Amino acid sequence: MSAKITTELLKQLRQVMKSPKYVQEPIQAYIVPSGDAHQSEYIAPCDCRRAFISGFDGSAGTAIVTEQHAAMWTDGRYFLQAAHQMDNNWILMKMGLKDTPTQEDWLVSVLPEGSKVGVDPFIIPADQWKRMSKALKSAGHDLVPVKENLIDTIWTDCPQRPCKPLITLDLSYTGVSWRDKIVALRSKMAERKVLWFVVTALDEVAWLFNLRGSDVEYNPVFFAYAVIGMNTIRLFIDGDRMMDPAVREHLQLDSTLEPEFKIQVVPYGSILSELQAVGAGLSPKEKVWLSDKASYALTEAIPKAYRYLTPYTPICIAKAVKNTSETEGMRRAHIKDAVALCELFNWLEKEVPKGTVTEIIAADKAEEFRSQQKDFVELSFATISSTGPNGAIIHYKPVPETNRTLSVNEIYLLDSGAQYKDGTTDVTRTMHLGTPSAYEKECFTYVLKGHIAVSAAIFPNGTKGHLLDSFARSALWDCGLDYLHGTGHGVGSFLNVHEGPCGISYKTFADEPLEAGMVVSDEPGYYEDGSFGIRIENVVLVIPAETKYNFKNRGSLTFEPLTLVPIQTKMIDVNLLTQKECDWVNDYHQKCREVIGAELERQGRHEALRWLIQETEPLTRVQ
Amino acid sequence: MSAKITTELLKQLRQVMKSPKYVQEPIQAYIVPSGDAHQSEYIAPCDCRRAFISGFDGSAGTAIVTEQHAAMWTDGRYFLQAAHQMDNNWILMKMGLKDTPTQEDWLVSVLPEGSKVGVDPFIIPADQWKRMSKALKSAGHDLVPVKENLIDTIWTDCPQRPCKPLITLDLSYTGVSWRDKIVALRSKMAERKVLWFVVTALDEVAWLFNLRGSDVEYNPVFFAYAVIGMNTIRLFIDGDRMMDPAVREHLQLDSTLEPEFKIQVVPYGSILSELQAVGAGLSPKEKVWLSDKASYALTEAIPKAYRYLTPYTPICIAKAVKNTSETEGMRRAHIKDAVALCELFNWLEKEVPKGTVTEIIAADKAEEFRSQQKDFVELSFATISSTGPNGAIIHYKPVPETNRTLSVNEIYLLDSGAQYKDGTTDVTRTMHLGTPSAYEKECFTYVLKGHIAVSAAIFPNGTKGHLLDSFARSALWDCGLDYLHGTGHGVGSFLNVHEGPCGISYKTFADEPLEAGMVVSDEPGYYEDGSFGIRIENVVLVIPAETKYNFKNRGSLTFEPLTLVPIQTKMIDVNLLTQKECDWVNDYHQKCREVIGAELERQGRHEALRWLIQETEPLTRVQ
Repeated sequence: MSAKITTELLKQLRQVMKSPKYVQEPIQAYIVPSGDAHQSEYIAPCDCRRAFISGFDGSAGTAIVTEQHAAMWTDGRYFLQAAHQMDNNWILMKMGLKDTPTQEDWLVSVLPEGSKVGVDPFIIPADQWKRMSKALKSAGHDLVPVKENLIDTIWTDCPQRPCKPLITLDLSYTGVSWRDKIVALRSKMAERKVLWFVVTALDEVAWLFNLRGSDVEYNPVFFAYAVIGMNTIRLFIDGDRMMDPAVREHLQLDSTLEPEFKIQVVPYGSILSELQAVGAGLSPKEKVWLSDKASYALTEAIPKAYRYLTPYTPICIAKAVKNTSETEGMRRAHIKDAVALCELFNWLEKEVPKGTVTEIIAADKAEEFRSQQKDFVELSFATISSTGPNGAIIHYKPVPETNRTLSVNEIYLLDSGAQYKDGTTDVTRTMHLGTPSAYEKECFTYVLKGHIAVSAAIFPNGTKGHLLDSFARSALWDCGLDYLHGTGHGVGSFLNVHEGPCGISYKTFADEPLEAGMVVSDEPGYYEDGSFGIRIENVVLVIPAETKYNFKNRGSLTFEPLTLVPIQTKMIDVNLLTQKECDWVNDYHQKCREVIGAELERQGRHEALRWLIQETEPLTRVQ
Repeated sequence: MSAKITTELLKQLRQVMKSPKYVQEPIQAYIVPSGDAHQSEYIAPCDCRRAFISGFDGSAGTAIVTEQHAAMWTDGRYFLQAAHQMDNNWILMKMGLKDTPTQEDWLVSVLPEGSKVGVDPFIIPADQWKRMSKALKSAGHDLVPVKENLIDTIWTDCPQRPCKPLITLDLSYTGVSWRDKIVALRSKMAERKVLWFVVTALDEVAWLFNLRGSDVEYNPVFFAYAVIGMNTIRLFIDGDRMMDPAVREHLQLDSTLEPEFKIQVVPYGSILSELQAVGAGLSPKEKVWLSDKASYALTEAIPKAYRYLTPYTPICIAKAVKNTSETEGMRRAHIKDAVALCELFNWLEKEVPKGTVTEIIAADKAEEFRSQQKDFVELSFATISSTGPNGAIIHYKPVPETNRTLSVNEIYLLDSGAQYKDGTTDVTRTMHLGTPSAYEKECFTYVLKGHIAVSAAIFPNGTKGHLLDSFARSALWDCGLDYLHGTGHGVGSFLNVHEGPCGISYKTFADEPLEAGMVVSDEPGYYEDGSFGIRIENVVLVIPAETKYNFKNRGSLTFEPLTLVPIQTKMIDVNLLTQKECDWVNDYHQKCREVIGAELERQGRHEALRWLIQETEPLTRVQ
């Protein structure tokens, strides 16, 4: 990694910050957030504006350029990477450290009186705009929307916005037709007395219409918005992908339909003007429903009195609860994924001792085995393939400069997953291909105890995920250990590998209660800087639990692991497990043997099957 | 309980709501909150305005009277009681039920256009004012402060505001002099760059000056405010209690002191005008620190630009962390309290079979035994003495109409505590004086497992209490059971039995991280409507924990029980305990035997000592 030279770029940016061609009045600072116009976690190359201007391409960061300074805010995961990738023009603002100023405080400290701070109103979420604008105003400055993105004006070789073909998903995958989803959405709208609903998140558009795309790597989504009225459906999308006969048929674009199900296809770029027209046509008490994370531009298109903002949209909540077709699809996807990993781990066991397998080779091999499986589409995120000290870097991705060779002397951590047409996977296994130390086994076993504590937890209907987080840490805490990340995130169904509104974390963000049908990850870990990383991750499905009693008739929930990949027993200090935990491991391995064994057999993968049998031998505790 | 006839009172209130003597313009609604001017949990009789106007005297409730309607909002604990105590003039608004409107929504639905809603600005906290005012404004109405309390104008036989003598606490109780507390407070003020700090909570005034009072039942506080500047101390307090030589000496009122420690004694009623004078004299950037729960009246006295509001004040946080003198005092208080309870339980064992002990008699007997102990001041809250089905009413207080006789056929639950000059206690024990059923034992054992899970938990420094709440529920959840209250609250040191800023609850209110020296309760329960209630409560001290490892050098914490009262082993199904849990019970009982046994011996209470020995026999698990 070498730093990007940004002197010339910053000079150009500072020029356009004063150019009447782009700004009504000169601005004294310009904010470049990470995101795209849909507040996506993963973004397309054309939206990597912060990386373009600064060189720093981590997943989280905000750049602010003033007439004199250029500063970058990012979190602990990226301090090192940002320092490497940025030249001396940039000040690194280490978020989470005590002395690091907030963006607002820093701006106030460096700006001349009465300054104007610009930002692309399509990129900044409305809630962030509000906070920033208030802070600046109270110090005598102004936050102003700059319609044309100033980075785009100087980014001469900016890649095109992707516009790839769409995939249609039939009922066997989705369980519910897009028409029925629209009907359900309209009934939620009627309940809340709103007339319009604006779909801004890419995965929500994809889910609503039972379509998938590949505009953004790892996320099977496509650039689009939708505006749903009580009698109209408008889909904002570009390109000739609407010419595809399969898509036309799927959306019934050429059929005679009841008018309320007739989809009007509108250019992607016209969302703002169309929404402004909607806003202008409203009568008192008519409301428009938007996510409170929608962009400032779209939120402002609707006059304040007519806005109905919620942290989670009804689509986000409906999407999180998987129906039977979706859970069956997720099960199938996880079986295929387990087959690929059994092949990989069997291969690693043979190849690693030869000293020829690097982190990158292992990651590629994992992708190769996955791609052999039916309905494989792509990976669901960048594979974390890390050995020894690299394992302690929680969001590590091997690159040639850091690429380490796997050996029989170090712990290997593989966090990977794929998109299949029937489901999304995300699994982490940690293993030792030689002989782990007693300390490594001890730490692994605490992490396993935490994993089991969450996976086997029984809890009342209506419980929020954050109330389960401490279960995952208790065994580590007992010995003075911990891990500095959350325990789980929602997982989409052939959609984003990270999705709301549920999760398991010590951060009590506004998570929605867990419900049967939701899918989350269970991934406690332990990381020792400079030595090793341990994480054990399954994707688990929320299911009803049978209990002896039933307080207030509320019913109980628990989890069923969808991931069925052996947990390396060599790493377990079995005498640290309780009998119940030991039984859990044996039951889990029995299920892996039965379900994955049958599929390996069916696929004729006999060597991997032998590996699976060997890895799922029952544990015995010494009493 | 019979309903209070309020027809005439409501007529009078509606008259003063239009009287130019009290309101500038007629108001169409008047809000009567529960609280006093200090946002106290427990209030003096003169502040029970909501109970006066409605008849409903539960601890939580808000009355709103309009020209046509009178409505009372209260929560599930009080639905029955409020329905009994209020006549037909009142609509009961059951908070927490789906169809119950909020106060704002209801007002908007019943008020004529452009209405004025009045409230006493001294009684409503600033944050509530803000919310209510915003909601009313957006519907075209106005929230207006009504200076004179309208209930007081019609309450002809309103009791006088109490003004009882003060108790001075010397260093042996407080560990820190009031001077040093002022120094520490000023250093916090300097850190935050504020010039003034306004002390509005009664327990914060008492703590700061090392004084106690008895103006409010159960809470050793007195009516006062304080305003601390960098060079001045103003104490707003009424009555001749400042004439008491001990108080004058304690506060050094007659000594020649450095001016910055000279206390100016000012009448209680002049707080508003004095604060307005402070507000008027501020220069730009000079700030005044207030709790965001301070009254609207006092908050408004400081112009908005000069206010510095926080959810917890530095006094609240400092007060929560007990120093060595305070923890030693708490230990002594809990030893005395345990002696009293050993006497009581020994007495109950003998008397209950005779059929002569009612809930009220048992509660009185508990108070009698406590009052025999050194430095006993009063109870710390109304004793919950409940047997059989009354035990399932979580905030039950026996009254003649409900008073049940204890028997050998029902579970008995006693939740009680006292104020001693050296500390505050709060303990719940649940027992059966005959033979408990297998089911009762099973439920008791789950509650005990939850109690132990919290008490024995080890967790990193900086952990917030709400992250421990699920530990208390896990054993209950496993069987489909739960309880509908939090697990613990902060406890004062010869101060309020409920205090912030820490606690253990599934409600993720803004609790501050647990620190060594904080004192909280650990009180899981299980309640079966119509049958029985179980709760096991200890007061526990947060202490450093020794752990095998020390991740990121953060250090770990755990709890030490201050309460040392046997847990009835007859109620335990020992085979539902793990060996670790069984060891915990035996270790706990061993400590009770040693510490309380020695004190019983010293006090010559031989019968109670025999009872203690019998109740602390070690448990043995059948393997």
